[in-house]
Amino acid sequence: MTAAYYQGNKTFSLGKSEQRILKADEVRLEVAYCGICGTDIHIFHGNMDNRVQIPQVIGHEVSAVIAEIGSGVNGFKIGDKVTVRPLAPGTESPEDNGVTHIGKNLKFIGIDTPGGMQTSWIVPAYTLHHLPEDMHLHLAALIEPLSVACHDVRLGKVQQGETVVVLGGGPIGLLIALIAREKGARVIVSEVNSSRLGLIQSLGFETINPFETDLAEKVKALTDEAMADIVFEVTGTAFGAETMTSLLKVRGRIVMVAIHAQSKQVDLFRFFWKELQMVGARVYEPEDFEKAISVVAEDRLPLDRIITKILPLEEVQEAFEMIDKNPEGMKYLLKCSD
Amino acid sequence: MTAAYYQGNKTFSLGKSEQRILKADEVRLEVAYCGICGTDIHIFHGNMDNRVQIPQVIGHEVSAVIAEIGSGVNGFKIGDKVTVRPLAPGTESPEDNGVTHIGKNLKFIGIDTPGGMQTSWIVPAYTLHHLPEDMHLHLAALIEPLSVACHDVRLGKVQQGETVVVLGGGPIGLLIALIAREKGARVIVSEVNSSRLGLIQSLGFETINPFETDLAEKVKALTDEAMADIVFEVTGTAFGAETMTSLLKVRGRIVMVAIHAQSKQVDLFRFFWKELQMVGARVYEPEDFEKAISVVAEDRLPLDRIITKILPLEEVQEAFEMIDKNPEGMKYLLKCSD
Repeated sequence: MTAAYYQGNKTFSLGKSEQRILKADEVRLEVAYCGICGTDIHIFHGNMDNRVQIPQVIGHEVSAVIAEIGSGVNGFKIGDKVTVRPLAPGTESPEDNGVTHIGKNLKFIGIDTPGGMQTSWIVPAYTLHHLPEDMHLHLAALIEPLSVACHDVRLGKVQQGETVVVLGGGPIGLLIALIAREKGARVIVSEVNSSRLGLIQSLGFETINPFETDLAEKVKALTDEAMADIVFEVTGTAFGAETMTSLLKVRGRIVMVAIHAQSKQVDLFRFFWKELQMVGARVYEPEDFEKAISVVAEDRLPLDRIITKILPLEEVQEAFEMIDKNPEGMKYLLKCSD
Repeated sequence: MTAAYYQGNKTFSLGKSEQRILKADEVRLEVAYCGICGTDIHIFHGNMDNRVQIPQVIGHEVSAVIAEIGSGVNGFKIGDKVTVRPLAPGTESPEDNGVTHIGKNLKFIGIDTPGGMQTSWIVPAYTLHHLPEDMHLHLAALIEPLSVACHDVRLGKVQQGETVVVLGGGPIGLLIALIAREKGARVIVSEVNSSRLGLIQSLGFETINPFETDLAEKVKALTDEAMADIVFEVTGTAFGAETMTSLLKVRGRIVMVAIHAQSKQVDLFRFFWKELQMVGARVYEPEDFEKAISVVAEDRLPLDRIITKILPLEEVQEAFEMIDKNPEGMKYLLKCSD
């Protein structure tokens, strides 16, 4: 029943998972694996101390087995393999526009409320998605970030034969690349880290290092001047914001995946001149989880290649420090139970 | 056969229209009225001397009667009332994406080639749209800017019952407001000029002066916290670019109508957080002209109220100087023939 508590100041301590009687709509999970997300790194760095209630268990990329079931829960039984869609919609707000997955009063489980970096985790049953019995649970820990990619690709309306440029080849960028390629798109990934570039190339993608090559000129050359249909901006950088509009054909689309903490310079003239489109994409909806689960179940993607390292939950401190020192890594998982 | 030649340096001279044998696909128009567009003012100020070939007749908001017909022209006869869609598509470019009205090699008639501020104007027949015989030709001179508004509203997918905020209540902003209201939307116009505000209010629109009132707070109050479905950014200002994202509900849309000559600070976080969308909209397609013609033909809009003044072509210099001194004016027309 180990739990990793974020204590602030780049520090985790080990303690025990919360033990209490389940509410009627809750389940207790035995967590198998919990992935470490970029957001968890932001928390580790203290950037989200205003949202996290220290000491708090964080983590939201979970595969698990159901260990206990509340009295009002239907459709699940002890022993079921599941993953968690970590969104707790709050009261509907007038500006929500009927969109529940990003409502104003949404709580993100694992940030705003306790998360999955623990052996035993209590969550509302409505957050659960069934997994096939034969699914490997270390791969299932990738379903949450893969659902982000499925959502991004869906909102980008990627079509077979289109040319996609992904700006930023970290875990989310690479998963977007994989899902877009599944849709039949040609995918070009822009990334600056040479180690990540090597991995991305080995997975069969065309790559560009924008520190070495003019990105727009290279896209122009690669596409015989047609330019890209879609750009996914996943860098969160000023460079990404400035460059994204320069890579597109007339009526090309941008999907804004990255979190730009500050406003950025954007070439609005190009939006007008070429009738460009941009859509923001945040987290996921239930259908994105179902899509991600089916992709993992059908073993269509080289997900094993994206997992850089699996560490035991007890080494949570070492895991976060390792990620800090190793920017070329992709996905790190914590193994939370046997 | 008078023609107004832009000579550079804020100066027009009067001369004669070009007289030559028509090519097979051309018609000669007797121009009735030619509106003065914001772009014409930019030309007058010397900002587009790199595109205009001085001395040049400019102008592209035209109503006319056909005076002569080239040997290969079908579907038009001498005496027909027409308006001109002033786009000359060039050779298709790979990045055009099959979109012809804003292709890379597009020439804009009246900017890149001679325009309509003259009595006698030769244009390719493919630019023409028929007008009903009983249409008032001074109102028909508004069809070109009205087509811009129809295009903007169409690309914005304005639906009945939606709340629209138009940032900038000049001629195009006001025409967008009118067309959006035709679609059944509630329209709020943000404008800083008190004289324009008075006109816009008198046409039945809700207005906000963002110099006097916090725009986002006011939209929040007017919509019972639901915020707007769509924002049309028509100001071209840093304020517009900064503010546009703050007025929308979840999955709200921005239509980028304005020409932002420089990159601007944009809150990309809000695009992500609320899954906002933005689409650029430039000029028009044939269906937008047909829509605008039907709106004028059915006399559904108070277009007479938007015409600030009609001056004879011979007073072109005075007309441009008047506009420069009178920022609260809306649409000025030149009467080019009797």
